Amino acid sequence: MSLDPITLAALNGADVESFERMLGDVFEHGSWVARAVAAERPFETVDALHRAMLATVSGAPLETRLAFIRGHPELAGAAAVDGNMGDSSASEQGSAGLDRLSRAELERFSALNRAYRERFGIPFIICVRHYTRPFILLEFERRLGRTPEEEVAMTLAQIGAITRLRIADVVDGPGRPKVDGRLSTHVLDTVSGRPAAGVRIELRDLSDGGAGVLMGTVETNGDGRTDKPLIADVPLRIGRYEIAFHIGAYFAGCTQAPAAPPFLDVVPVRFAIAEPEAHYHVPLLATPWSYSTYRGS
Amino acid sequence: MSLDPITLAALNGADVESFERMLGDVFEHGSWVARAVAAERPFETVDALHRAMLATVSGAPLETRLAFIRGHPELAGAAAVDGNMGDSSASEQGSAGLDRLSRAELERFSALNRAYRERFGIPFIICVRHYTRPFILLEFERRLGRTPEEEVAMTLAQIGAITRLRIADVVDGPGRPKVDGRLSTHVLDTVSGRPAAGVRIELRDLSDGGAGVLMGTVETNGDGRTDKPLIADVPLRIGRYEIAFHIGAYFAGCTQAPAAPPFLDVVPVRFAIAEPEAHYHVPLLATPWSYSTYRGS
Amino acid sequence: MSLDPITLAALNGADVESFERMLGDVFEHGSWVARAVAAERPFETVDALHRAMLATVSGAPLETRLAFIRGHPELAGAAAVDGNMGDSSASEQGSAGLDRLSRAELERFSALNRAYRERFGIPFIICVRHYTRPFILLEFERRLGRTPEEEVAMTLAQIGAITRLRIADVVDGPGRPKVDGRLSTHVLDTVSGRPAAGVRIELRDLSDGGAGVLMGTVETNGDGRTDKPLIADVPLRIGRYEIAFHIGAYFAGCTQAPAAPPFLDVVPVRFAIAEPEAHYHVPLLATPWSYSTYRGS
Amino acid sequence: MSLDPITLAALNGADVESFERMLGDVFEHGSWVARAVAAERPFETVDALHRAMLATVSGAPLETRLAFIRGHPELAGAAAVDGNMGDSSASEQGSAGLDRLSRAELERFSALNRAYRERFGIPFIICVRHYTRPFILLEFERRLGRTPEEEVAMTLAQIGAITRLRIADVVDGPGRPKVDGRLSTHVLDTVSGRPAAGVRIELRDLSDGGAGVLMGTVETNGDGRTDKPLIADVPLRIGRYEIAFHIGAYFAGCTQAPAAPPFLDVVPVRFAIAEPEAHYHVPLLATPWSYSTYRGS
Repeated sequence: MSLDPITLAALNGADVESFERMLGDVFEHGSWVARAVAAERPFETVDALHRAMLATVSGAPLETRLAFIRGHPELAGAAAVDGNMGDSSASEQGSAGLDRLSRAELERFSALNRAYRERFGIPFIICVRHYTRPFILLEFERRLGRTPEEEVAMTLAQIGAITRLRIADVVDGPGRPKVDGRLSTHVLDTVSGRPAAGVRIELRDLSDGGAGVLMGTVETNGDGRTDKPLIADVPLRIGRYEIAFHIGAYFAGCTQAPAAPPFLDVVPVRFAIAEPEAHYHVPLLATPWSYSTYRGS
Repeated sequence: MSLDPITLAALNGADVESFERMLGDVFEHGSWVARAVAAERPFETVDALHRAMLATVSGAPLETRLAFIRGHPELAGAAAVDGNMGDSSASEQGSAGLDRLSRAELERFSALNRAYRERFGIPFIICVRHYTRPFILLEFERRLGRTPEEEVAMTLAQIGAITRLRIADVVDGPGRPKVDGRLSTHVLDTVSGRPAAGVRIELRDLSDGGAGVLMGTVETNGDGRTDKPLIADVPLRIGRYEIAFHIGAYFAGCTQAPAAPPFLDVVPVRFAIAEPEAHYHVPLLATPWSYSTYRGS
Repeated sequence: MSLDPITLAALNGADVESFERMLGDVFEHGSWVARAVAAERPFETVDALHRAMLATVSGAPLETRLAFIRGHPELAGAAAVDGNMGDSSASEQGSAGLDRLSRAELERFSALNRAYRERFGIPFIICVRHYTRPFILLEFERRLGRTPEEEVAMTLAQIGAITRLRIADVVDGPGRPKVDGRLSTHVLDTVSGRPAAGVRIELRDLSDGGAGVLMGTVETNGDGRTDKPLIADVPLRIGRYEIAFHIGAYFAGCTQAPAAPPFLDVVPVRFAIAEPEAHYHVPLLATPWSYSTYRGS
Repeated sequence: MSLDPITLAALNGADVESFERMLGDVFEHGSWVARAVAAERPFETVDALHRAMLATVSGAPLETRLAFIRGHPELAGAAAVDGNMGDSSASEQGSAGLDRLSRAELERFSALNRAYRERFGIPFIICVRHYTRPFILLEFERRLGRTPEEEVAMTLAQIGAITRLRIADVVDGPGRPKVDGRLSTHVLDTVSGRPAAGVRIELRDLSDGGAGVLMGTVETNGDGRTDKPLIADVPLRIGRYEIAFHIGAYFAGCTQAPAAPPFLDVVPVRFAIAEPEAHYHVPLLATPWSYSTYRGS
């Protein structure tokens, strides 16, 4: 998100104060984490730097860890409303739309935040860049039912995921963590044994359980693929999706599909994404009268 | 629709006046059609009786035919509102929901009726039992674009279809026209090579282009089929449909589907029906990660 | 196999001597089994009669049971060569081709028989009507590796299967055991969404691991099915099979398959049958460029 | 095939005699063709050089063209036996196994060569690197049934294909013709939604209509693909093939496949290749009870 990433070389060469300042926002109120690893420099890779910072947190006394966790802002909480939140947190919560909640949603988040804090004594922390907004709520409810031990471990895992994405954003250099989520598709016309070109495709986020939110429209190229993956180089958000394939229009000229209206028109394929950094390839093999889809690779 | 069908034997044995009365409603204002075929009795099959009546209409002088066509009520027209329409027409138009139109829909039908009558000089006649309501409108618009010759031929074909269904309703006996539309499905679990039992299935009418109207919910039995076809023994209405298969719940216990949320949950299969008396078999072959569907037999 | 089955009524009404004679061949050297259940008459179903006879064997003292088992002929053994074997055994062994073995096969059976008898003290008994000849050998070798307890239990289970088939052959009446194996297929042309008619199909027994033995050739009818199942109303033999579908010739006239030579010509589908009384439905969904097959229902 | 290709630069800079010598073998007895284009140098691409040489042949007087065609050796003919044939021809005919024919095959080729020469007055010329040996014979017979005009055109097209491959072998430089045939596969386990790793795959040439000739054995890697395409960077030979997928062994550990013997074991997929420079991707999507295959891209 930073337009000019810091280089690993600059971090390795900086004085401790600058080093702290440059990395202070990666971990929430985290200049102490940066300070603790300054002496371990030089780091050979960005990843090694991140692991050292995570180890500092994991290795800290319980009270320190809890204090650190408690220093995190609530999701969609007062800090968000007041602007009293680290820049990274603000930007991430914004990316999931948590800064544009309806009154009802705000109240639901408030109630969940309250319940979570009462039950576990810590704020609810989640890598918001890994979830669609509705799935943050689903995950929030699911995690409320777990044990305190599970939640402390889960919280540190989430902080690991959050900070890995942050450090990949702000630090350039060898071993920079690669954010490798990808959703792709292709369409095969099994009547002619050829890629289906010119098929209109719509991608929707169906996470809210309703008609969904259109994320984009694209047409297949001569290889039956899209010029770019539907989603790439960002974490995929855990949630539900639909790819709608307009194969009725594609087969309209085909002499083998005389039915009017055509048996198949817009074929919806609905699926969930569960792994933010996996590759999801969701192809369609179609004739005017049949189709197959699968999670491919 | 008549609870006590007339028997073909009774028709064959009746005096001409009773014969006319008994069949007078099959063709709209059609006692003259009945009268004309009375002398051809006895009929060996209900179908032969129907064909004789149709031949009477087709063989009549043009002016008679046009007068006959003009005697039909308008779709969703004033006759429907006033109750000034044959019982069969009233019942059929009701079956398509044409007696429960919104003001906007009524106005659209009025405008189309007017345009059609202006263009062709006859009322728009369609076998309403062969179409969903939205597809009646689509067909209405499509037919407005055709030639007068095409529309007179189409009108007689529609009257043939309408009266075939009516005579099948009211006359019992050998050669009674069989109304043989059928929509069926089955679900195969290709992980275990067995029919998928207990899969919840919803059938929706999507003809209106929106979220659709739930037509029914059913569960697959031990053969992966439904105890009865989804639709049977009535004409299928030309329109768009969705069968939603709840395979996420079915596979929830399957050790091979560890993803959370599951990749596939409710699988929607959307298709159009174009032939009212055909068999549409729309099966699903599924694993937690793939599925196929096709028009089967 | 008997052309004139005995009726259950006749068995129920016969004197004990006749009863014994009539059923003496169902269990090998089994007039004592028949005699033992004569007093339990009348039997309401053929199945109840069979169960009573099986219970007599299971309930007999160990020595009697072992003597009974030892009274069975060896598979493809000297009794077969000498003709010193019950008629049913002779017919069954003939059905599996065990009376037409090559010298090498005879020697292999001899060696296995010897090894089995040395290890377990009983002859090897198997329901030969449940296996292809090569799979009898595979099963023979597999069973040689099991424990004596497993083999005594397995032997009685096999005798239950053998005698169930025999009694179904020779006794008519209510509750006659139904032999319900079935292998069927159908071919769907997913280019046109219709059953594929006129597709030549060959069924081969591939159990011997070579090119296989042609069991039959048939053509699909207008429903894309065969007029009769490929196999029906007999036990399916556990073994390996191939259905070869000549879809190249079927699609030869199809404008969408311009490739020469055609991409797909004769499509072989190879599978094993493991359950003699199950239904195996093995369909083919095909275009000139793709196909799917599965164990259906 | 030449280990040290000539460079285009060298050709452009050579004196005419060297130029002739370097290219003399590309067209059969073809130094005159090289000489004719020498003055057109420099050529910017290898492809342009090839096109100029082809144009020389096409533009030559009919008698020259026929003499040129007649200068080609017969397939598997006396020149092959005597060694009286250009190096390229010898190597190509060897690649199709035409130097290792049985007596019966030699006689068949002789008879076809004689019939062809009698009918058309020219030797039969075919791009042998584009066909399996049995398909050369099939094509030979097919072409015998065509008209002289068709065959002269076809012969020049085949010479174009032959010389394109030769020039790609011997001349390096910009615009070198790319020989881009490719056969690839991948295996997807649709039970687990993952690529199937460790699946043994055999590729066979089935062109001779018998059991086929094993071309190679390979195992799928972690991506369910083979490390290299099954065939790549050479012309695919028009012919029939089988890929055999050992999925029974792959699924043997899968808890969902309890059948013994397993329903599916070695899955054969048989197909023809019709386009030597196309990409054929022939994947398998499988469970223990079902599979799909198609020509993909």
